Amino acid sequence: MPGNSFGQLFRITTAGESHGGAIGVIIDGCPPGLAIAQEDIQKELDRRKPGQSAITTPRSEKDTIHILSGVTDGLTTGTPILLVAYNEDAKSEDYLAMKDVLRPSHADYTYVTKYGLREWRGSGRASARETLARVAVGAIAQKYLREKLGMEFVSFVQQVGDIKTTVDLNTVSRSGIDSSMVRCPDSKVAQQMIDKIEEVRAAKDSIGGIIRGVIRHVPAGLGEPVFDKLPADLGKAMLSINAVKGFDIGLGFESVGLKGSQHNDEFVPAEKGSIRTKTNNAGGTLGGISSGEMIYFRVAFKPVATIGQKQNTVTTSGESVTLEAAGRHDPCVLPRAVPIVDAMAALVMMDHYLRHKAQNQ
Amino acid sequence: MPGNSFGQLFRITTAGESHGGAIGVIIDGCPPGLAIAQEDIQKELDRRKPGQSAITTPRSEKDTIHILSGVTDGLTTGTPILLVAYNEDAKSEDYLAMKDVLRPSHADYTYVTKYGLREWRGSGRASARETLARVAVGAIAQKYLREKLGMEFVSFVQQVGDIKTTVDLNTVSRSGIDSSMVRCPDSKVAQQMIDKIEEVRAAKDSIGGIIRGVIRHVPAGLGEPVFDKLPADLGKAMLSINAVKGFDIGLGFESVGLKGSQHNDEFVPAEKGSIRTKTNNAGGTLGGISSGEMIYFRVAFKPVATIGQKQNTVTTSGESVTLEAAGRHDPCVLPRAVPIVDAMAALVMMDHYLRHKAQNQ
Amino acid sequence: MPGNSFGQLFRITTAGESHGGAIGVIIDGCPPGLAIAQEDIQKELDRRKPGQSAITTPRSEKDTIHILSGVTDGLTTGTPILLVAYNEDAKSEDYLAMKDVLRPSHADYTYVTKYGLREWRGSGRASARETLARVAVGAIAQKYLREKLGMEFVSFVQQVGDIKTTVDLNTVSRSGIDSSMVRCPDSKVAQQMIDKIEEVRAAKDSIGGIIRGVIRHVPAGLGEPVFDKLPADLGKAMLSINAVKGFDIGLGFESVGLKGSQHNDEFVPAEKGSIRTKTNNAGGTLGGISSGEMIYFRVAFKPVATIGQKQNTVTTSGESVTLEAAGRHDPCVLPRAVPIVDAMAALVMMDHYLRHKAQNQ
Amino acid sequence: MPGNSFGQLFRITTAGESHGGAIGVIIDGCPPGLAIAQEDIQKELDRRKPGQSAITTPRSEKDTIHILSGVTDGLTTGTPILLVAYNEDAKSEDYLAMKDVLRPSHADYTYVTKYGLREWRGSGRASARETLARVAVGAIAQKYLREKLGMEFVSFVQQVGDIKTTVDLNTVSRSGIDSSMVRCPDSKVAQQMIDKIEEVRAAKDSIGGIIRGVIRHVPAGLGEPVFDKLPADLGKAMLSINAVKGFDIGLGFESVGLKGSQHNDEFVPAEKGSIRTKTNNAGGTLGGISSGEMIYFRVAFKPVATIGQKQNTVTTSGESVTLEAAGRHDPCVLPRAVPIVDAMAALVMMDHYLRHKAQNQ
Repeated sequence: MPGNSFGQLFRITTAGESHGGAIGVIIDGCPPGLAIAQEDIQKELDRRKPGQSAITTPRSEKDTIHILSGVTDGLTTGTPILLVAYNEDAKSEDYLAMKDVLRPSHADYTYVTKYGLREWRGSGRASARETLARVAVGAIAQKYLREKLGMEFVSFVQQVGDIKTTVDLNTVSRSGIDSSMVRCPDSKVAQQMIDKIEEVRAAKDSIGGIIRGVIRHVPAGLGEPVFDKLPADLGKAMLSINAVKGFDIGLGFESVGLKGSQHNDEFVPAEKGSIRTKTNNAGGTLGGISSGEMIYFRVAFKPVATIGQKQNTVTTSGESVTLEAAGRHDPCVLPRAVPIVDAMAALVMMDHYLRHKAQNQ
Repeated sequence: MPGNSFGQLFRITTAGESHGGAIGVIIDGCPPGLAIAQEDIQKELDRRKPGQSAITTPRSEKDTIHILSGVTDGLTTGTPILLVAYNEDAKSEDYLAMKDVLRPSHADYTYVTKYGLREWRGSGRASARETLARVAVGAIAQKYLREKLGMEFVSFVQQVGDIKTTVDLNTVSRSGIDSSMVRCPDSKVAQQMIDKIEEVRAAKDSIGGIIRGVIRHVPAGLGEPVFDKLPADLGKAMLSINAVKGFDIGLGFESVGLKGSQHNDEFVPAEKGSIRTKTNNAGGTLGGISSGEMIYFRVAFKPVATIGQKQNTVTTSGESVTLEAAGRHDPCVLPRAVPIVDAMAALVMMDHYLRHKAQNQ
Repeated sequence: MPGNSFGQLFRITTAGESHGGAIGVIIDGCPPGLAIAQEDIQKELDRRKPGQSAITTPRSEKDTIHILSGVTDGLTTGTPILLVAYNEDAKSEDYLAMKDVLRPSHADYTYVTKYGLREWRGSGRASARETLARVAVGAIAQKYLREKLGMEFVSFVQQVGDIKTTVDLNTVSRSGIDSSMVRCPDSKVAQQMIDKIEEVRAAKDSIGGIIRGVIRHVPAGLGEPVFDKLPADLGKAMLSINAVKGFDIGLGFESVGLKGSQHNDEFVPAEKGSIRTKTNNAGGTLGGISSGEMIYFRVAFKPVATIGQKQNTVTTSGESVTLEAAGRHDPCVLPRAVPIVDAMAALVMMDHYLRHKAQNQ
Repeated sequence: MPGNSFGQLFRITTAGESHGGAIGVIIDGCPPGLAIAQEDIQKELDRRKPGQSAITTPRSEKDTIHILSGVTDGLTTGTPILLVAYNEDAKSEDYLAMKDVLRPSHADYTYVTKYGLREWRGSGRASARETLARVAVGAIAQKYLREKLGMEFVSFVQQVGDIKTTVDLNTVSRSGIDSSMVRCPDSKVAQQMIDKIEEVRAAKDSIGGIIRGVIRHVPAGLGEPVFDKLPADLGKAMLSINAVKGFDIGLGFESVGLKGSQHNDEFVPAEKGSIRTKTNNAGGTLGGISSGEMIYFRVAFKPVATIGQKQNTVTTSGESVTLEAAGRHDPCVLPRAVPIVDAMAALVMMDHYLRHKAQNQ
């Protein structure tokens, strides 16, 4: 199957480029009877949209979502939900001059090589505007999982460049995250991150960082052996986001330096005859299946490719040129990427919840 | 779909537990006319098998592969290939005493929670013996990709605990890797790794590490927007391997501290009118699609859960017990995991090659 | 995966109800570089639309298609194509009175039983308006297959009630079919069919019939063993169309009375060293794979459920009521179903062409 | 995905040719905790095996099934079940003489055209021996559905050539069917069928027929809009069986001659507030979803291609030859195809039951 679908049972298929008619998504498999209003979706989209704050791009993308099917009298019907956000602010002329220029570290070269042609307006299908569709669907998945299972998605910006927070994952809250312009719930570190981003912007440059993904109140038993382990599907979900270059779960890369005796999580008896682990170095899964402990992971974002500085590159016919991007771009995408991480995490959990239910309940 | 299949067009489905009748795999979608002999597969399996060297487990698993269908007169027919390796060395009685004990950081607890029962002999479906099937198929995929496109898979052990090599990825060779007991082509560092593993084994403990994945001679254009980006599918493939906790590609987690001006890979004119990049910080993909540059990535393995030291845990009914594993286990799985990483990388590339061909050639 | 997608490599996902915001479809996997204009699609849609002639419903559905993504400068880009047709003529009030009435032989009862609720405006997702999306995509697939392989889709109405034509499948043409109001290329029989439909309409009743599917210039080798045989996928495609109750291929049900010696198709040497069959009782496939001979099949449509006569039924709470449908409905859907059969046939062939290419070319 | 898998959530992948090492199948997604013994499967296989009676082929295929994984202590574990039946009676030398001969109405020509080569021993992957795997899995699915929902599969031979029974579908029983050598529960008609088959055999010919599929005690609500309608998936399942050329459901092809007023099934109040239909012309589904009424359908089998009479044909290089098959073949496959129809019906129902549960329960 082509690559524009995600999920098995809660399955989405997205379409659309930054400068075409619209971004759209069809959700197939949503359980019936879920109350969904346009505002439920819009609220999450507003966390992603450009121009929210001083440190994001001033572009004002039209991110209004339209529910075109699958919901009647405010409830999902169980049939496909078609969501569309029309493109309006598309300044194609900005791109005409660069029609044949291969922007460094962009997908221009690989698209034209793969398909023989490319949409040169904006970044075509490689545009991050596509993630709007994911966030929209993520709002629906999060609502279902919250109402049904009490599941919570509280990802936040943990690191920008070298600046890093060490807040307690157990107590971080959505409101604490969103009260920060940079979506870091540690106000002191958040200010340092903002300063860093301002400095990078002034230098017409960009900077990377890390989002800490956190999922709380996950029932034990979700995830499938052997290829569709929960960490594998979460990893794929995150690595499919633009600019993501790495993923780890639990202690992740840090665990490679440990001994088994240090890393193993002891089982202990817990309240009402339940079983817990004393530590949670594994990050909430064992053998690819959720253990009932908190899931936490890291998502590494490289610095975005678009920068205002002059760069050497070539045209599609191989001639050397110098590129000086005008455009309005984020020096650091992480604050706006937090809802995308939450959304993709919710898609994975939703899908695995339905899969588990099908076979085992 | 349930989780025991991988790939879309070169699609495998595996089955089998460590103590059942056999490990088996069906490959569906293999191109016809490929010469495949039992030895082609056995050669790769021998890289994975236990008891190869002083630093791996002395268990002598019967890893002989049988080709039961899909090959006639030495050539693949285009119809499904069924491979089976029978289990013979299964000492179920070793496990009877532990039937109700939840081994720390193993999948015992999550399996029994998910399914309501579990195969208590060995680790059931969570056993790493399942990876035998992947390696067998990987041998076929690697043969096809080598003969058809000259593609090369040369993963190696880059790090054990804190001990790390910095060999040049461009020159590392399969023979250099396999000449080392620990599958690290840097002989000096390899010896330090071996010493480290011996030390850990003596302490009845285990240790983690990092495998560096390397794929050379990849044509540009493989990978699909937007969910099935090459890094997303490689990441999923690696994170589906037992004990893997992290994945990154190109500069990966290291890139988060860089500026765009440092990280971007400049395009330059190359031989015969082709286009290359001056650097390859991206690790061989742009926008999720191969750029023609070398693909390189890291796979982080936690220390394996099974250790000889006493550990506290509980039974399935929640009673505290002390566990002291006898058994014969690897203190460090990395040397034997190298062929698994190569195999999973080959499965991803094979699948994406066929997918690309279907739509674009 | 949920049931609103069709195809593996040329994969469509449809959405929309008769009275929601729109009917939409995403096509994923379309080869790049195909010239597609709105008119190419509209032309096929016009064959399906209501109100074309005296014998179809006078409803004037707004069947204008909008291409919202995946096409740039008139060419497909290889990325998803989003097509949308907005709903405008929706008279929901017509349905309010029947909100709780289960229309006989409609899907009202099964939808409400399955999902716990149903879209009561129109027939919700069970509305035949959904087939608009299929026809739109079918136009694209037919264009590709015609330009690339010369393949031709010339389905027609073979039977209405007991009235039946026996035209030669080898010579029937699209223009001959479309010049008839009832889409039967045999003008004499066509007039009898029209008279029959007028008679049924006058009686406030409906009537069934058979569409003969014909695909010419199919290369040998398309279709997959063993579950995705070409007849199996064509059968599924046709049986997924509203009101279809039967499918057969080649001599089909007629073949059950024959001996093998009568039914077998002898191979004979043909022009330029090629191989043909003397007869084509099989209908163009052998072992599920196209043989290079013409593919022909039959699709049986029951009489549509909506009739103007009084009918006894019950409400969702089980109370007996009498139903007298007003509404504007087709007494015989077959003339408008011809382009749907062509479209579904084209989707199957397109998908199998790409699948074959992936593995074998 | 390649064509050797069937089902979404209860998903099987089969492998094997008639003369290779084995026929195998992996079942992925079977619910855990189901008691499955080798005998449960063998019982169904014995209904399919050759040499059961005077009217079937005297070949004694070794149809012993081995459960190689996925079952522990007699219960399914929820992980993949690998079933294998080894090939033993393979007389390849019989086929050597015909290595290059294209048998009329067999798949020899299409396989060699598709793949560039073919397994010439037996019929390769096109052999009906592949259906052994389906019947084995069908035994498991039938057991689950019977124990869980009381569902019953009672297909039988309704027609051989022109000889036809009209037994009441509501009362036909598995024991009544199996007590007949020809699997027709109407003993008088059964004898006529047997006489017919003997006559055909004596003439070194073959004959077709119809199997009536019957599924009783199906809960309402199974089946998915819009492409995966229950009739569409049942149709595909049946049309994927060797020699099947047609499928219809309910009144099927007979319904085309009816008026809507004759065909519509009136809803009526039934016991305990439930809703039933007065008639069941639809055959147990409405809008593609089960209505709670009995599902019944027809499966048309052409006469098998292998006959003892001389036939004209060509070799792979296009030279005319005369073929006179020796071999031991069934003059009429229908008696042995009954368990295949039951099996495929059970696979469809099992899959749709799990799919329905995932989304709606």
